[in-house]
Amino acid sequence: MRIIVDAFGGDNAPEEILKGCVEAVAETGGLEIILAGNKAKIMTAAKACEIAEAVEKMEILDCPDVITMEDEPMSVLKEKKESSMAVGLRAVAEGKADAFASAGNSGALTVGTTMIVKRIRGIKRVTFAPVMPKYDGFFMLADVGANVDARPNMLLQFAMMASIYMREVMGIENPRVGLANIGTEAHKGDELRIEAYKLLSESAAVNFIGNVEPRDMPYDGADIIVTDGFTGNIMLKLFEGVAGALMDKIKGVLTNGVKNKIAAAMVYGDMKKLKKSVDYNEYGGAPIMGATKPVFKIHGSAKASTVKSALLLTDAYAKSGITEKITESLASEKSAEALEEEEK
Amino acid sequence: MRIIVDAFGGDNAPEEILKGCVEAVAETGGLEIILAGNKAKIMTAAKACEIAEAVEKMEILDCPDVITMEDEPMSVLKEKKESSMAVGLRAVAEGKADAFASAGNSGALTVGTTMIVKRIRGIKRVTFAPVMPKYDGFFMLADVGANVDARPNMLLQFAMMASIYMREVMGIENPRVGLANIGTEAHKGDELRIEAYKLLSESAAVNFIGNVEPRDMPYDGADIIVTDGFTGNIMLKLFEGVAGALMDKIKGVLTNGVKNKIAAAMVYGDMKKLKKSVDYNEYGGAPIMGATKPVFKIHGSAKASTVKSALLLTDAYAKSGITEKITESLASEKSAEALEEEEK
Repeated sequence: MRIIVDAFGGDNAPEEILKGCVEAVAETGGLEIILAGNKAKIMTAAKACEIAEAVEKMEILDCPDVITMEDEPMSVLKEKKESSMAVGLRAVAEGKADAFASAGNSGALTVGTTMIVKRIRGIKRVTFAPVMPKYDGFFMLADVGANVDARPNMLLQFAMMASIYMREVMGIENPRVGLANIGTEAHKGDELRIEAYKLLSESAAVNFIGNVEPRDMPYDGADIIVTDGFTGNIMLKLFEGVAGALMDKIKGVLTNGVKNKIAAAMVYGDMKKLKKSVDYNEYGGAPIMGATKPVFKIHGSAKASTVKSALLLTDAYAKSGITEKITESLASEKSAEALEEEEK
Repeated sequence: MRIIVDAFGGDNAPEEILKGCVEAVAETGGLEIILAGNKAKIMTAAKACEIAEAVEKMEILDCPDVITMEDEPMSVLKEKKESSMAVGLRAVAEGKADAFASAGNSGALTVGTTMIVKRIRGIKRVTFAPVMPKYDGFFMLADVGANVDARPNMLLQFAMMASIYMREVMGIENPRVGLANIGTEAHKGDELRIEAYKLLSESAAVNFIGNVEPRDMPYDGADIIVTDGFTGNIMLKLFEGVAGALMDKIKGVLTNGVKNKIAAAMVYGDMKKLKKSVDYNEYGGAPIMGATKPVFKIHGSAKASTVKSALLLTDAYAKSGITEKITESLASEKSAEALEEEEK
């Protein structure tokens, strides 16, 4: 597989991105990485990290600009169209590689995926769907794209795409799909939830288990939680905030005085495991699905080892043939157009 | 103050409710409690708990029925109108007491508050607003009422009522109000958020600090987080789930083998404090505001000490003159009707 990597996305670019790329290539053998970004800056950083030799073997799509976290999502199409993200996305769209990965601005990456790589015919909206930690293992939250005009058939499509990803990339045989809602009964929630519940129930492409209350998600509510992009974005950020604040408090306890520090040393290994198990980075990031090529969002704060894990996932994601499987799944369902007609 | 207490609401009724009532009366002196529920069962439970003497001094509104967690919210008006909750709410509405408190079915309590106690003139919807733990202290989330048709002026009214409660009952002088949203900029979110942002910005009754991302809420995002009842209900349940799962994991670490148990003993006091600081029960429950009399929802799982705390809060809530203050606040703002006109 050939993956184009945005060398200038994320908090630790380009150094940690480059190191991650080198590690991923070393680990896989067959993986080919093409870097997008300012060539001179890439080579300077590579030299500073003592990985110049490995980086020199990679093709570089030389481009002058960078999209920052402060840039508007639409900038990827306009004032920042010579950025590493835009150039990388265009190259993937043109068939130069099998997938694109970036740790940069999520909004810009979603817009760029939709407008440059373009949606699969019949897909109403790409889904930004992070894999998140739960009590024992992980689940996927689809969608967190912060969109504000979700329709029921979009939720069905999110569920369908997430099911393919969880099966093909994450190895969950028959992933259970739950609809995030304020109660478990079929009639709960607003019109969007009630209609989505019906569509999900009737779909042969997803293993729908009904409404799931958010209280159960961190335990074993479902393998995939489907929701609209506004609610999902709120949920993602609250999840991060609550887990973060609690871990900070625990850290406070375990560093409060000599006695506590001794106790902390005694549980060090287990606490480290716990910390790892609730760390988003462990699950590498979030696929953006529904476009004609796989796009993967690496965590913005990713260091080299996370970048490496993310690139291995992107490799598996590209190998899964997800675009073809989404197309097949769409064909086996009622067409998106037909669903939309019904809604009217 | 005279408070009517639903003796049969919650997981631990009637025993823990009765014990909590007795403790609250003992602690305050001036507090008078009237119990609603089956008199024979109340007295049997009181004897079993060895508090018969204290309970005998309380007036009892004898009624045969109980609303369970499985009952539909509307049952409080129909098939369960002789339940302890319905009878208690009617007695408060008729002026027999200053406030009502129940640990029972939240949905039924909200419906009953709206339909039996009735809303203050001009209030579009009562708000169910729990006080929740954050990193250091607490914040109020308004609304979590699971409603699905929020309008911008409802969010403004939630903010206004929550501000009065936080100031008068919780002692926060100039409570900061944040709007839960997917980004901090004024233009973020759906139409409801954008319109609510405008109303909140223009209001003299609230100290609006702008949009708050849920990531910041468990830290110090704001004293009051305003949102619609659907999103708020999702947030409340996710908050509980994430905090619960993480505390369970920590418990797992601290009981994993002899060495860890020794370490756990060393940090016992501090961990207990931590547990207390993230425990909802510490903040006693949730006021339901906007009705002509104060109604307070005690946590469903409350034991005697939490019931006692909740009743002391209900006492303060009743003493705060909140109904008058809400009425004044409504008058000083544009009238709710005028706001609604603008929306059209």
